[in-house]
Amino acid sequence: MSEFDTATAVAADGSGAIHPRWDIGGNANGGYLLALAASRMRDVAGRPDPVTVTAHYLAPGLAGPVQIDAETIKAGKRFTTMSATMRRGDRPLLRVLGTFGDLADVAGPDHVARADHVTFGPPELPAMAECIPRTPYQGGLEVPMMERLDVRLRPADAGFAGGLRSGVAEMAGWFAFADGRPVDTLALLLVCDALPPAVFNIDLPAGWVPTMEFTVHVRARPAPGPVRCVFRSRAVSGGFLEEDGEVWDSADRLVAMSRQLALVPR
Amino acid sequence: MSEFDTATAVAADGSGAIHPRWDIGGNANGGYLLALAASRMRDVAGRPDPVTVTAHYLAPGLAGPVQIDAETIKAGKRFTTMSATMRRGDRPLLRVLGTFGDLADVAGPDHVARADHVTFGPPELPAMAECIPRTPYQGGLEVPMMERLDVRLRPADAGFAGGLRSGVAEMAGWFAFADGRPVDTLALLLVCDALPPAVFNIDLPAGWVPTMEFTVHVRARPAPGPVRCVFRSRAVSGGFLEEDGEVWDSADRLVAMSRQLALVPR
Repeated sequence: MSEFDTATAVAADGSGAIHPRWDIGGNANGGYLLALAASRMRDVAGRPDPVTVTAHYLAPGLAGPVQIDAETIKAGKRFTTMSATMRRGDRPLLRVLGTFGDLADVAGPDHVARADHVTFGPPELPAMAECIPRTPYQGGLEVPMMERLDVRLRPADAGFAGGLRSGVAEMAGWFAFADGRPVDTLALLLVCDALPPAVFNIDLPAGWVPTMEFTVHVRARPAPGPVRCVFRSRAVSGGFLEEDGEVWDSADRLVAMSRQLALVPR
Repeated sequence: MSEFDTATAVAADGSGAIHPRWDIGGNANGGYLLALAASRMRDVAGRPDPVTVTAHYLAPGLAGPVQIDAETIKAGKRFTTMSATMRRGDRPLLRVLGTFGDLADVAGPDHVARADHVTFGPPELPAMAECIPRTPYQGGLEVPMMERLDVRLRPADAGFAGGLRSGVAEMAGWFAFADGRPVDTLALLLVCDALPPAVFNIDLPAGWVPTMEFTVHVRARPAPGPVRCVFRSRAVSGGFLEEDGEVWDSADRLVAMSRQLALVPR
């Protein structure tokens, strides 16, 4: 069993665990926590793919046992809408609202364009081997999760750890699992939170960027191979920032879009 | 009392109503439904501003009585996270997950830019008087909600109703209430769903674009006056489309960002 499958397995009674070494400086990665909750939600829904899931983060997720209670809100013909709460004891860590379906049978017209008529497509990235691995120790911060992932940043975006910020709130790179597990629709929830924050490339106080809310739209099942992603923040204001992500598969197909609302480091 | 305040009033026991004539072809507008639920949620939270709210739409909202049950998930120092279900009888119509706070006391560094270094700012719009009112009867579709709103579209985006699509999945315009009620943070939830779908300007089958999921980030309390908004869809694929919105106030400040996942008309 792959590391990711082990770390997102939840028993039929909803008991599971935040596994160690999926963290950044001690707190489990938000995308991993969402995947862990969604793993239970899709089991209860009986539908294989998260289509749209939203998490609100309530407390940091330290490694250890958790209880995930999933409730079916509506089971429809094509989709099932679920709510889930991840708790440790009486303390809620995460609340998720999500709709699940089967993305094997999707169909419809395709139109992929930006408003300025430019083709909307994957980010321009050098080959994976020419990108910069995100390591488990980066810029003074311990990121044990990076032992499990093969995340490689676009060279122009990777200088921040050494103090060379690009000046643009953008972070692009490749994602694969270190153990070769395929990137499926559950893993896309992790992918959308696996790169360093895009605002690390602009002039803001460095530090923890706590996510309040994180939504992922899964648009298709990824074709085999690593995925390419790009994350951008446009507005840092009033103490908040958004980060928008796109994930593209090896067939140049958009497989996920994400957005999160986070607090600006103080 | 303004029309919007009347239509979003909910009693202390959670009983309320989907008011008539906030609909499009019989189904209440999704932004109005979200505002109605959020009105109850902020009352229970005791915090005045929705900061991030996500709705999943479960059934069409016809006018008539509803019950809105709001549950506090976590009341923290700055924010309160809430869940709410809007039902008619046993049938859930809407499920909402949201975090509420007080946007009067926001502070922090500002950085507003696009990834290409271009300033990220309000859409370029002619003066409100030179834009095209969205009328209660448009292109064969009855939109009674437009009796209550003063929505004026950018002329280049407004031809779709007469069959002249711009070819770009973008829709921009002004928003105000017809009765002059100020646009506050609750109203922004409506604003983010008050323009025609951006995809009406590209070559897709015309028709109902059912929203599955709708998230609004409220970034600031709007300054007095009408707001300017722009909505864009980039990827129509696999039967789904996203629509991203921005709302800017009279002081050129970003006051809301929205995203929805909708089904492509068939």
